[in-house]
This record gives sequence, C-alpha cells and structure tokens, in this order.
Amino acid sequence: MTTLRRIDLRSDTVTKPDDTMRAAMAAAEVGDDVLDHDPTMRALEERAAGLLEVEAMLWVPSGSMGNLIALMLHLSRGDRFLAARGSHVLEAELGTPAWLAGGMPHPLEWTGAPGRISADDVSAFATSGAPYYALRTALLCLENTHNFAGGTVTPPDHHALLVATAREAGIRVHLDGARLWNAAAALQVPPAALTVGVDTVQVCLSKGLGAPVGSLVGGSAGFVAEARRVRKMLGGGVRQGGVLAAAGLVALDRMADVAIDNANAATLAAGLAELGWDVTAPETNIVLASVPDVPTTLRMLDRVGVPAVAVSSGVRFVTHRDVSAVDIAEALDRIKTG
Amino acid sequence: MTTLRRIDLRSDTVTKPDDTMRAAMAAAEVGDDVLDHDPTMRALEERAAGLLEVEAMLWVPSGSMGNLIALMLHLSRGDRFLAARGSHVLEAELGTPAWLAGGMPHPLEWTGAPGRISADDVSAFATSGAPYYALRTALLCLENTHNFAGGTVTPPDHHALLVATAREAGIRVHLDGARLWNAAAALQVPPAALTVGVDTVQVCLSKGLGAPVGSLVGGSAGFVAEARRVRKMLGGGVRQGGVLAAAGLVALDRMADVAIDNANAATLAAGLAELGWDVTAPETNIVLASVPDVPTTLRMLDRVGVPAVAVSSGVRFVTHRDVSAVDIAEALDRIKTG
Amino acid sequence: MTTLRRIDLRSDTVTKPDDTMRAAMAAAEVGDDVLDHDPTMRALEERAAGLLEVEAMLWVPSGSMGNLIALMLHLSRGDRFLAARGSHVLEAELGTPAWLAGGMPHPLEWTGAPGRISADDVSAFATSGAPYYALRTALLCLENTHNFAGGTVTPPDHHALLVATAREAGIRVHLDGARLWNAAAALQVPPAALTVGVDTVQVCLSKGLGAPVGSLVGGSAGFVAEARRVRKMLGGGVRQGGVLAAAGLVALDRMADVAIDNANAATLAAGLAELGWDVTAPETNIVLASVPDVPTTLRMLDRVGVPAVAVSSGVRFVTHRDVSAVDIAEALDRIKTG
Amino acid sequence: MTTLRRIDLRSDTVTKPDDTMRAAMAAAEVGDDVLDHDPTMRALEERAAGLLEVEAMLWVPSGSMGNLIALMLHLSRGDRFLAARGSHVLEAELGTPAWLAGGMPHPLEWTGAPGRISADDVSAFATSGAPYYALRTALLCLENTHNFAGGTVTPPDHHALLVATAREAGIRVHLDGARLWNAAAALQVPPAALTVGVDTVQVCLSKGLGAPVGSLVGGSAGFVAEARRVRKMLGGGVRQGGVLAAAGLVALDRMADVAIDNANAATLAAGLAELGWDVTAPETNIVLASVPDVPTTLRMLDRVGVPAVAVSSGVRFVTHRDVSAVDIAEALDRIKTG
Repeated sequence: MTTLRRIDLRSDTVTKPDDTMRAAMAAAEVGDDVLDHDPTMRALEERAAGLLEVEAMLWVPSGSMGNLIALMLHLSRGDRFLAARGSHVLEAELGTPAWLAGGMPHPLEWTGAPGRISADDVSAFATSGAPYYALRTALLCLENTHNFAGGTVTPPDHHALLVATAREAGIRVHLDGARLWNAAAALQVPPAALTVGVDTVQVCLSKGLGAPVGSLVGGSAGFVAEARRVRKMLGGGVRQGGVLAAAGLVALDRMADVAIDNANAATLAAGLAELGWDVTAPETNIVLASVPDVPTTLRMLDRVGVPAVAVSSGVRFVTHRDVSAVDIAEALDRIKTG
Repeated sequence: MTTLRRIDLRSDTVTKPDDTMRAAMAAAEVGDDVLDHDPTMRALEERAAGLLEVEAMLWVPSGSMGNLIALMLHLSRGDRFLAARGSHVLEAELGTPAWLAGGMPHPLEWTGAPGRISADDVSAFATSGAPYYALRTALLCLENTHNFAGGTVTPPDHHALLVATAREAGIRVHLDGARLWNAAAALQVPPAALTVGVDTVQVCLSKGLGAPVGSLVGGSAGFVAEARRVRKMLGGGVRQGGVLAAAGLVALDRMADVAIDNANAATLAAGLAELGWDVTAPETNIVLASVPDVPTTLRMLDRVGVPAVAVSSGVRFVTHRDVSAVDIAEALDRIKTG
Repeated sequence: MTTLRRIDLRSDTVTKPDDTMRAAMAAAEVGDDVLDHDPTMRALEERAAGLLEVEAMLWVPSGSMGNLIALMLHLSRGDRFLAARGSHVLEAELGTPAWLAGGMPHPLEWTGAPGRISADDVSAFATSGAPYYALRTALLCLENTHNFAGGTVTPPDHHALLVATAREAGIRVHLDGARLWNAAAALQVPPAALTVGVDTVQVCLSKGLGAPVGSLVGGSAGFVAEARRVRKMLGGGVRQGGVLAAAGLVALDRMADVAIDNANAATLAAGLAELGWDVTAPETNIVLASVPDVPTTLRMLDRVGVPAVAVSSGVRFVTHRDVSAVDIAEALDRIKTG
Repeated sequence: MTTLRRIDLRSDTVTKPDDTMRAAMAAAEVGDDVLDHDPTMRALEERAAGLLEVEAMLWVPSGSMGNLIALMLHLSRGDRFLAARGSHVLEAELGTPAWLAGGMPHPLEWTGAPGRISADDVSAFATSGAPYYALRTALLCLENTHNFAGGTVTPPDHHALLVATAREAGIRVHLDGARLWNAAAALQVPPAALTVGVDTVQVCLSKGLGAPVGSLVGGSAGFVAEARRVRKMLGGGVRQGGVLAAAGLVALDRMADVAIDNANAATLAAGLAELGWDVTAPETNIVLASVPDVPTTLRMLDRVGVPAVAVSSGVRFVTHRDVSAVDIAEALDRIKTG
C-alpha cells in the first residue's frame, strides 16, 4: 500500500492554512501587541465582537486558554461550576478548571438528547440562603456544539431558557463555542443567535475555520480588560500577533463553509450505516460510531489511511475543510474494503 | 411550649464532652507539639495507628483538614480523582479538593445500592498509555460509611475489590473514614478490617466518638512526615494539643458505643415508618426520609425540638451518644403530635 | 548532670496551661461551632474585638492560619504584598503566602532600626495608572512586635504614618500582632492603640498569654463572615471549640503579665552582656545574641538546660510566663559556667 | 512636527518580521502539533537544543510562559526560589511565580556589579537538616543578561561558580536567557558556554532575534515531556505552529546580528553622556539613564519620536534590529534639540 493519501478525520484541528491565508499572514500589518495593541489583532477582535454581539473579544493562542481565562475570572475559591457531562472543560482541559481556576466541577446529566441539559437541573443549584459552609455555584458552562456528545446542537430557544434559568439562580454563563460556527450553520442562524445573554464566550479559529493558531474569548469590556492581564500571566501575550490574526480574519470570511463539513458528515454517517456500522445521524461535523472493538477498528482505519480517534463511546470522525465530498466517498470505499 | 429540651438529630458532631472526658483534658500531660511533639498527641497518634493498622497517624483539627492534606499529597497539577456521587469531599468540603488540592473530581455513579460504586467504573480510568494531553487519574476516594447516601456501609470484601482494582489501574486510594467506627460496629469487624490496602485514611474523633475537636489522618510514615508539614502550612499545627488529644484517647475507648447509635437509628426509622414516613432502613446511625415538602418538615421538627437537616433527597436524622433510646422514643412522640 | 530542670527559652509558645486555665477549660460551656456558634468561642471573639477595637474577630487554631486567611482574602491572582524583611509571613509560614494565598511577596528593607520600615518605601508601590502588565501591590503586612528583628516595637505614631501612607497608595494593611501584647506592655498603651486604621489584625493566645492553642483574626464584620468560610475550607472549623476558647478568655485576663516577660528579657540581656556576649538591649521579650559559632553555642545551651534557637543573626532567647526572674538568674549562672 | 518617523527604543520586542521571515512563514511545512508534532516546530526545537547543548527544547508563545512552566515544574508547595533583585521573574511576570507556580520568591542583593549575585548568598540557603517547619529552597533563577540591571552580563566563570554552588546546596538552576544572545555576543562565546550545568533554560526569539512570536524552554528530555503537558494546560499548545516556528528558524540564523545592537547601545550611551545625561556604559543592548524627572523626560522623548520606558532607576532605552546606527545618530540629534 504505497503512499496512500491520508484522509485525516481525527479532528478538524488538522486543517492547514491555504495559499490565500498564508498570503494574508505574510502581508499582515503588525505591532507590539503587549505594548500597543497590534493593529491586525485589534481588527480581528473588533470584527469577532461584532459578529458575536458582545462588547469585546480577545485573541488567545488556543481555545483551552480562552476557556481557562473565563473560568479563572468567573470562579473564586472553590466555587462550583456546572457543565454537561462529557464537556470539553471537564474531559479535555487536563484538570485546569480545578487546578488553575480553582473551581469545583459538577457534571449535569444529559436529558432528552446527547449533550442536552435541563433547566431544572440548573435551577437546583441556586445557593441563595445556603449556610456559610455550603458550596457556592457560580457558573454554568455551556458547549455548543457539544464535542463529545457528537457535535450536538443547542438551539436558540433552549439556549435562552438555560441562560434565563441560570441568571434567575444567580449563576453566570460561559459558552464554549469552539464549534459555534457549525451549530449556526446547522440551524441556519447567525452565530449571535447562540450567544444571547451569556456573560462570556469562546470561539475557535483553528478548527472548522482553518486558521493555523488562535481562538477568541470575550464578553463585557471589563471582562476583556482583565482577561488581557490574565492572558499575559499565562504566557499568552504575544508581540507581533498580527501575523496570526490575519489568518483569523480570513478564517472568519469562511464561516459559512462549515455547512459543507456538516453535509459531509451526514454523507459519511449514512455511508457507514449502509456498511452496517452503528452510527448516530450527526447534527454537525462529528460522527460517532459504536464499535465492538475500538483498538482493532482504529488500527484498520489507520491502515486504510482514514484515521479517527477513540472516544468513550467508540470512534469519532470529524469532517473539516481539508476533506471534500470526494474524499468522503473515497474514505467510505477504503473502509468498505478495509 | 416552655423550655422543651432539644433532641438534636442534625448531626453527630453536636455531642458534648462529658465529665470523664473533661477531666482527662484537664489532667493532660502537654508539650509544644510544633517544636517537640506533644506527648499526649503522640500517644493518641500511636494508638490510632495501631487500631487502624497503618504505619503512622497525625492529629488534625478536623476531618476536612485530614481529607484536604491527603488530597494535597496524592494529587498533582489537575489530576483526576474518583469518588462516589454525593461523597463528603465532593459536596461538603467547599470545593477545596479543586481549589487547594488542585484535583479534578469525577463522581462515580452508585450501582446496586446507595453510595456503592463498582470496580468496573474504577478500572475504566486506568490511564497507562494515554496521550500526553489526556487527564491522569491519580486517586480513588472512598467514604465508609457514606454520609449523604444515608450512612451506608462498604463491607470488607467489596472494599478489598475496589482497592485491588484501583491498584491494578495505577490509582491510589484514600479512605474518608469519618464514621468508620459506625461501619465497623454494623459489620461487627475491627476498624482495621476496613482499612486494608488503602494508602491513606482519615477518621474523626468528634462525631460518633464524642470528642470536642479532632480527627486523625495517616498512612505510611513518609506520608505522615510530609502531612505534618502541610498541616503546619494550613495552620493546623497547634502547640499544647495534648489537651485535645486527651479527649481523643477517651473517645477511642468508646468506639464500641456507636453500636448503640446504630440501634437507635434503626428504632427511629422504624418509628417514622409506622408514622407513615418514607424512610430507608438505616445501615448505621443516619436516617434519610423523603418528604414532600422539606422546609415545612424542618420547621415542624424545629418546633417540636427535634431538629434535623435537609439533604438533597429530603431530611436527614443522625443519632449519637448524646441521644438515648429514651430520647428517640420521646422524639417519635413529639413528631407524631407535631 | 542528673535531672537538670530545663529553662526553656526557645520560644514563648512552650508555655503550658496552669490549673486555673485547665479548670476553665473543663468547665466551659460548649456548642457545635460550625452549626451554631459555640457560646464560649463567641464570648472570646466578642471580648477580643472590643479589646482591639475592630468590628469582629474569629478564633483560629494558630497564628499561621490567621495570617493565611487574611492574606487569602486581601490578595488576588499574584498581587504583590509588602512586608519588612524577615517578617514571620516571609520566613516562617512555609511559603503559604505564595502557594495558598497566591501573593507575590516583596521584602522592604529595615531603615533606622531593626524591623522598622519607612513610609517612603511603602508609597513607592502605589500602582494607580500603571499599565495592565504591571504587578499590583495590594497589601502591606505589618508585624508588631517584629519577631526576627528581636521583638522590636513599632510605636503608635509610626504605625499611624505607615497606615496612612498605605491607604493613600491604595494598599490595604494587615497587622500580624502575634506578640502585640508585648508591644502594648512595652509602650504602656492599650492594644487598640496599635491597631488603629488596619484592615485586619491577628493576635495569638498561645504565645505570651499562655493558652495551649489558639489565635484570633479579625477586622470588619464582612471580613470575618468570609474568614469563617475560609477557616472551614482550611480545616480550622472545629466543633466544641469552647474548651479552647475558655483557655483563651483566661489568657486575655493575663495580658498585663507580659510586662514581666519584657523585664525578664532585659535582665537576661544585661546578664549576657556582663558575661561578654554581643547582645542587643531588647525592647520586649526577645533577646538576640550574635555569636561566633551558632551550633556550638546551641549545644552548650542545651547541655546546661537553657535551650534557645538559631536565627539568621545568631541565637534567639524568648522569655515567657513559665520562666520567672529566679529562673533567669539561674539560667545566667548556668551559662556562665557552661 | 509632521509624520516624524518613530525610532522606537522602548524594547527589543517591537521588532517586526521582514520579508525574508514572512516568506519563510508563508512557505512553512506544518502539521497539528498537539496530535502529531508539527515538523517545523520540531526542526526549530531540535536546532535550539543543539545550539544550547541541552537534551530537548519546547516552543512556547512567550518567554513568560517558558519561565512559568519551568518554575511550575521546579517548585512544589511553597518552595522558596532565589533570584537577583529586579529579575524579570520577580518584577515583570505579574506575580505568577507565586500565584501559579506556588513558589516563595527571595530576592538576592546585587554584589559587586548591577545584577550580579554572590555564591555565598546562594549557599546560605542550603536547607539540608532544617526542621520540618522551615522553608525549603528549591531553585535559583538566573537571568543573563539581566534586563532591569541594564542588560548586564554574567560571564561563564561566574555562571559556573553559581551553578556549582547551587548544586552543592541541593538547589536546582533555571536560566532566564531571554537575551542570552546579547550576552554571548558581548562575551564572544557561543550561547552554550552560558548554559553549562543548568537544569532548564528559556530563550526568546521575539526580542533581539526579531521573530514576531515565540520563545523556547528546555532541559532534559524528561523535563520537556512534562513541559509539553503543562504548556497544553496553560493554553500554549497550538496547532499548525510551524508558521511561527519558521520565523524562529530565520531568527536563529541572525543570532550574531545582536552584536550590532550591542554596538548601537554603546554609541547611544556615549552620545547621551556627551549631552550631559547620567548614563551607565552598557554591556549589551540596554541603556539605563538616571534622570531627575522621569515623566517629563519620557514626554520629551515621545515628542521627538524616540520613545523609551520608565524603570525603577530612571529611563531605559533598548536597541534592536529595527534601529540602525544611522537611526541612533538621528535619535541623539533629536534628543539634543528636544
């Protein structure tokens, strides 16, 4: 099997910048962002704030840093935070919500659908009137789409209900929107329809949108002022970041393209189902398959050049802008004969 | 309702030292425990180590400090730790396992019985071979009896299975034995039958055993040497602690008396059931009752001088050495007419 | 050298409770301080607040915990705090101001006298108008008397100047008053003359005042409410603490007695000087001696039953209520022939 | 004063990538560095490891993150670390050595020359044999060149003495080599002559070397493996980082060019001295001037388009690759008539 071209479905983080994006990076106007505020970073941050309808946004090197900064600023001395079981902050940020943000996580069970949480389970954590020796719940952390539930979408009405319930209970809301673009595309709404009422939001440029590096976190202007300080503390304050922000601006131009990834995921899932796989119909660009023997399946996928990753429930495939509809058809062919 | 004597069933922490215990405190031989090692504290620590069959124990002002020190020493930079849903470390230590010990909690579901966890759910967290960006699971935190599950007991065989499974998975074990005495009494085994194989254990002197202040935490001699340092850091290094340790030695003499508390709890539960309450038959000294309206019930109990506390599932009563069988009968009478 | 009675001058923490204090402990009215507020602890806290002229005080197991709680509540995310070089928080609290309170210490040089700091050195740290990437200075930590400078006293006028300067610079003030009683006695002022204007203060019951265990930390009522919560987090929330608070109340009765310790220290220093030792005239109950060979001197002192401890500058002797004027004379005799 | 071209001497961080560097970025081979190890990042890390003669290096977004990771891995629970007064880790990292690494800083006084520390002051912190309640000193943090002392150089022989002394005292050594290139150029030695014996080292690509973003931290292979994990935790794990690493490779090609910056600084200092300024002859690319009124001086410099920054002792000028010898002459002209 010589030089089989890989159709890499491990994650949408594997996308590589194309020539247009590289040219934008090479031409970027830059400045010292710590001392002055790099002009291209400023442009990116302002554009993203407009798009998400929040006061301000801040570039960060990764979505993990964006989430971490938000949790650090929302949580104080052991405060409890709520998140749907399997959330990225619970499972894929190496315990930093506890270690560095000092927050006590409490997973909420899924109700009704994968990744879906109920308003009642949030309101149960209102802590007004509790004795001094009771845990305080300070934050609800939403994730839209929910990665490990299979890229599932929280629609605007349920989002609004959760936000209103949290507010009523005295609980703030952070939205991990690493793949918010995929949710918006699936729902055919603008991204801002999915950020209504949140205190803070994080979005990624390096997943579906294809930038090499970078995410954004934001909310109120006051939050971003302090977030800028904490970013410097964590070591995420960079100098001529405009070279990366330029890629981010190109990435935002391509927001609508993730609809293609969503469609490709649907094709992949249908194809796998035809081959007898136990797959769930995807809501966005993530396909989960239950398989009897995960390691064996992963080895087979690797052998045919269609690598995927293990998740708790089986195998996860993620479509992205470096994989076309033709690639998906080819991947299905290879798996069939794998 | 003039001067109704309170029959306080909120917690077994409300016990007051009796004359014998106070006399022991007044007569205690003491020294500066920071500079030298107070002789009565040393005697208490050695006796407890013998009783629990571990190398060494260390006096601490509270069970919370004992658990905190153990978690601080077992967990490193965001390590995950496992504990049964509703465990004291998860619900009643104000988030310090995350904030101060830096650990990422993961609640395990109950299987088969309240507070019971399965070995399979532990072994699923073996992290050998995981990529560098995966959470590491470092600790299993057991609680025997399990307070918020209703004082439920883990018997020696299931304890041994969990410990062996954790060890096989490369996971250490801490036992929160705040009410280990009640478990031992219920099972009619010595306490050491319930500490087999653990890395560390914490036991309380101020709950069922009736000392005014104090718990003990221990394990290997190396653990205790470092725990002594961390205790000083947290502000729990005291000077002439012998006055408290003397009460602790009296408390240990009374270990077997908790069987009476267990029996009184059974009487209380049976009586409440006769009155039509929805109660679970208790395994030790904690009675949980599901009630339709918790605040109204608590107010009624307060009015008749039999205070209890709210827990997630309803109302919790705890029997203890300052409440006799006669008091329980009286409490049931009052509740009947409440 | 058979059974030479030790005249222990290592620290005033070595004092043992006498019969009066033990009787008070044995007779103490108690309650569950976590659930209710133990009546004797409440009485002690209210009396201390009156004495120090602050809104409220909180009992803690040690002075280290009192200082730690204050620093935890004053400092946020890497804030800088100022303290005179050699302060207890810098040298003798095991790095917890950094590790647990997250504060960045900055030692201020002594000016004019040992342990003395200047107002100019404080005002230099006003951070109003600094860029976002500059350290923020949040707290000035005073220590009166200053232990490692040799029990030196900050008089009311200099105290007031430092407090006013800090306030002007936007910096809060915590006073480590572990030996505030000795300062007040030396100056012949009430303790409240030395707490004027501070945000928080910590005092010890277990040093000069002779209680076996306990300190108090306080300030505004709001501070104490949150401090109570943090005390519980650290594991310092105890149950029937009244047995210790009763000793504390007796200790406060004896506040004036530390004048005797101060006088005994003066006698000791004069005697050592006569023997040719290089000693500084003490301001309170601590005598520092520069010696050519510290380990040899400590061994000699141990041999003659007059143990002391090493400090950076040589050897430290501390007088206390378990050492009488006769003992000091005896100690000098033994050292002479040592 | 229309459109006066700025000669920006605030910091060498203001350098902008030139066309060659931008072309390299645009052409960089990339991969997902989290999942695989980006090929260009790997090439950069291997080249830097060879240059510094350590086992392995790791790319990080900033020097602050590099230092923070090293401190996090060297320090445990309140350990003390030593650093020359005014070090970057003490003054310019926002308290993160305390807050996030949990270390207790201890500044060492300068002896003999600005930024210079003595071996005796290091050996005084050997803690072998200390009681359990004594601070432990775990790390010596060197900085070469020492920024706030004025870019002063520690030569190889003194470096070797400090490292040997620390090792003898059981203290590890981290070298903040953000401007190690300038030290090496000034001494005319290879950079590896200045890393001999250290446990870990951090170097910057975005200061004198002119890359837009990035630093490297490294030491043993084991250190780098764990540092990679901590980098991910802090949010510094990026995806197609090769676009930045490509700039870093170009930057390393230009290592020798910093000799020009050093020479320009000498010219600037001599020129300022001629104008009557109180300046120290620079050892590398940093010029410190004592001025009677810092804010007035900074305003004047801004007005003439030669901005500098305030440091504790006055005004700091930094030369760099975007400022030529002609620019320096021009700057002096403007200042003369300012």
